[in-house]
Amino acid sequence: MAEEKENIQFELTDELIERVELLIEQKNDKELRKLLNEFHYADIAEILDEVDLEEAMYVIKLLDSETTSDVLMELDEDNREKVLRNLSAKEIAEEIEELDTDDAADIIAELPENRQQEVISQIEDEEHKAEITELLAYDEDTAGGLMAKELVKVYETWTVAGCLRRIRGQAKDVTRVHSIYVVNKQNKLIGRLSLKDLIVAKSDEKIADIYITSVDYVYVDEDVEDVAKVMSKYDLEAIPVVDENMTLLGRITIDDIVDVLKEEADKDYQLAAGITSDVEADDSIWELTKARLPWLLIGMFGGIGAASIINGFSDAMLKFPALLMFIPLIQATAGNVGVQSSAIVVQGLANDTIDGNILNRLLKEFMLGLVNGLAIACVVLVISHFAFNTTYHESLTICIALIAVIIMAALIGTFIPIFLDKRGIDAAVATGPFITTSNDVFGILMYFMIAKFILGF
Amino acid sequence: MAEEKENIQFELTDELIERVELLIEQKNDKELRKLLNEFHYADIAEILDEVDLEEAMYVIKLLDSETTSDVLMELDEDNREKVLRNLSAKEIAEEIEELDTDDAADIIAELPENRQQEVISQIEDEEHKAEITELLAYDEDTAGGLMAKELVKVYETWTVAGCLRRIRGQAKDVTRVHSIYVVNKQNKLIGRLSLKDLIVAKSDEKIADIYITSVDYVYVDEDVEDVAKVMSKYDLEAIPVVDENMTLLGRITIDDIVDVLKEEADKDYQLAAGITSDVEADDSIWELTKARLPWLLIGMFGGIGAASIINGFSDAMLKFPALLMFIPLIQATAGNVGVQSSAIVVQGLANDTIDGNILNRLLKEFMLGLVNGLAIACVVLVISHFAFNTTYHESLTICIALIAVIIMAALIGTFIPIFLDKRGIDAAVATGPFITTSNDVFGILMYFMIAKFILGF
Repeated sequence: MAEEKENIQFELTDELIERVELLIEQKNDKELRKLLNEFHYADIAEILDEVDLEEAMYVIKLLDSETTSDVLMELDEDNREKVLRNLSAKEIAEEIEELDTDDAADIIAELPENRQQEVISQIEDEEHKAEITELLAYDEDTAGGLMAKELVKVYETWTVAGCLRRIRGQAKDVTRVHSIYVVNKQNKLIGRLSLKDLIVAKSDEKIADIYITSVDYVYVDEDVEDVAKVMSKYDLEAIPVVDENMTLLGRITIDDIVDVLKEEADKDYQLAAGITSDVEADDSIWELTKARLPWLLIGMFGGIGAASIINGFSDAMLKFPALLMFIPLIQATAGNVGVQSSAIVVQGLANDTIDGNILNRLLKEFMLGLVNGLAIACVVLVISHFAFNTTYHESLTICIALIAVIIMAALIGTFIPIFLDKRGIDAAVATGPFITTSNDVFGILMYFMIAKFILGF
Repeated sequence: MAEEKENIQFELTDELIERVELLIEQKNDKELRKLLNEFHYADIAEILDEVDLEEAMYVIKLLDSETTSDVLMELDEDNREKVLRNLSAKEIAEEIEELDTDDAADIIAELPENRQQEVISQIEDEEHKAEITELLAYDEDTAGGLMAKELVKVYETWTVAGCLRRIRGQAKDVTRVHSIYVVNKQNKLIGRLSLKDLIVAKSDEKIADIYITSVDYVYVDEDVEDVAKVMSKYDLEAIPVVDENMTLLGRITIDDIVDVLKEEADKDYQLAAGITSDVEADDSIWELTKARLPWLLIGMFGGIGAASIINGFSDAMLKFPALLMFIPLIQATAGNVGVQSSAIVVQGLANDTIDGNILNRLLKEFMLGLVNGLAIACVVLVISHFAFNTTYHESLTICIALIAVIIMAALIGTFIPIFLDKRGIDAAVATGPFITTSNDVFGILMYFMIAKFILGF
């Protein structure tokens, strides 16, 4: 069992990094080992993420594989890839022997096709090898891709005493025992027990008499996001994974779910900001450009669209130059309202808090847009009149346009995510630049049409 | 221990709700109890969130408080408030008796001041009452506000056998035993044990010989977000809470942290979308307006600012009307780039993945802006020339302005969040409308200044 070091006080200081780098340079293995063994593997990973590859490799070869395997899992993905490239298949296999099957499979999955078999063949523990190979077969976005084979299971026919005796054996391979799964002779999941129940029970009782028949489970092909929803809804810390015959295949623990939830949140956040692929601030300019340029181009075409609309009304521009001053206002407001509406819908869809039919929701957004629109229009009416002494008709045009645009933006921002969601498309793409751009174009078009109607040109 | 019902198949259908409503109308308690006892309390809560208050109250009075107390915790906050208003202090106290101290304290904290004391005084279990009162004293955003008093602790002097015997007693009040905390005579935390270790150990061994001295812990006044970071970084499922003297006060479990992480993510997402307070799609129009109008007003003033800039260059407008067509393009691009840059920085700050000094980061964004800017400028150059037959100088103006504006937006979007973070302000407010608005204004100003320089007016 991996000992967790006391580590709240851990802080990644430049001094610490320099100290490590110095010890590496001096090849002072004794001191280095002494220093690093003070830290939790997650902290060692943070240090190695800061030093350069050669230094990281030096540390990884220095520490025992029990530690380094955990460190590998915590490394930044790019760095892990570099490190793995510098390890032989044999060395990687040694690390893998130390890892739980789910982590082991994740590591292997990250290797290039050609190396995967090479590494697997080097794993000595045949059972471990077989289990990892099984896990590699599952799609990484399903319960099967997330689960570990390590679990504690007992047969209903056992007694509490016999159970405890046998569990001692199984438990050694399991870092944390959440639940004990009860199976019948056919290895089908029929219930669960907590270690607590086992301890509280009398030693001569039969498992069949004390186990809890109601047990949560997920199917091996269930989507990870759904697994996350189930586990957080029911406050589960582990959930067994079964196939369609209820055969017990593995278990998923909450710490993996925490990671899933964080990745989901980060992804949605980036999509809302118009970043298409998962990038970090420290990624290369090229990666960041790939992630950012697409939306910028979409926004550009929106801008071009707006330009041709304005161009189409060029005669009006010359008659009523005052109108042009307020294009940015119309555009900005449309964009902001659209993003607000869509964000609320996207979040509601993600949290399953959106119910009722779509028409009611659109009606509500209509009212909301009306309220916000009136409030803003009043302020603009006053300012435009006094600060820009626009004519009565111009002011009227601007205010009515504002209200209309806000309502339209609210409706588009609400409708599109729901529409995409119904089509099975991730609604999260439907906020940010996407909404902003479409609202820019529609908003300006609407603005000129209203102007044409009121001012008549 | 609350039995978890098998519930993956649970689906909240209209039929189910109608069935429940019918049984309530018929006052068919037997059937209703039979039906609802099929479900997990989280599912019952989902049903009650759909029916109207009278019906919900009927169900809550019908089911035993062991179930309803859990249901209460899962209800939508607004609905819970309504339900609590309809329960007597005595009834609430009965529910509270069934809850863990952390949930109990949360419920009481939601009550109006005047009722809190009333309810507490009605709690019969004196120890429970004292513990809840203690928890109420802590700030809800600290470890103390999140922790529960329920935990299993043992003294280093006990033997494994004696330990198991005593744990049977303590464990009864603890829904899940994650870790067993080892304390010395002064009740100071000195280490931990897992139930597994205890089971694997020989019964005559002393705790002092088998416990793990390295234990993670948080201080009672630690910020919940930091607790969440620690627990997810070190994959902890529970963490003990201590005061400055290492006295063991309580423990925090991962399921509470999952909720914290989700709330955090939702909040940041909404802030990025320009929604100031935590709202849901189903909140009232008034609540939604309160949350949305502030940013819209800020955006409005940005728009007014842009208007006065354009107004200031009105003579140029008449000379080079083509320039005006591209204002939306400039504005949209500035907004999108700003949001992208700020989102990446905000996320990096939240995940502690941002290192290196601010200058390097700004330099990187400068390069990034240059690359993206050149790419977009090229496309625009072609389109503007052929589609809008702008003059060579006008096209040049637009392209240079685009590049300059993109770079500026990238820099502003990067700098502001970092600046706010250094000032201890939540950087998440610094994206979305905030960035968009500031970039709108600066972008248009820059556009005209560049135009003035190149075209000279």
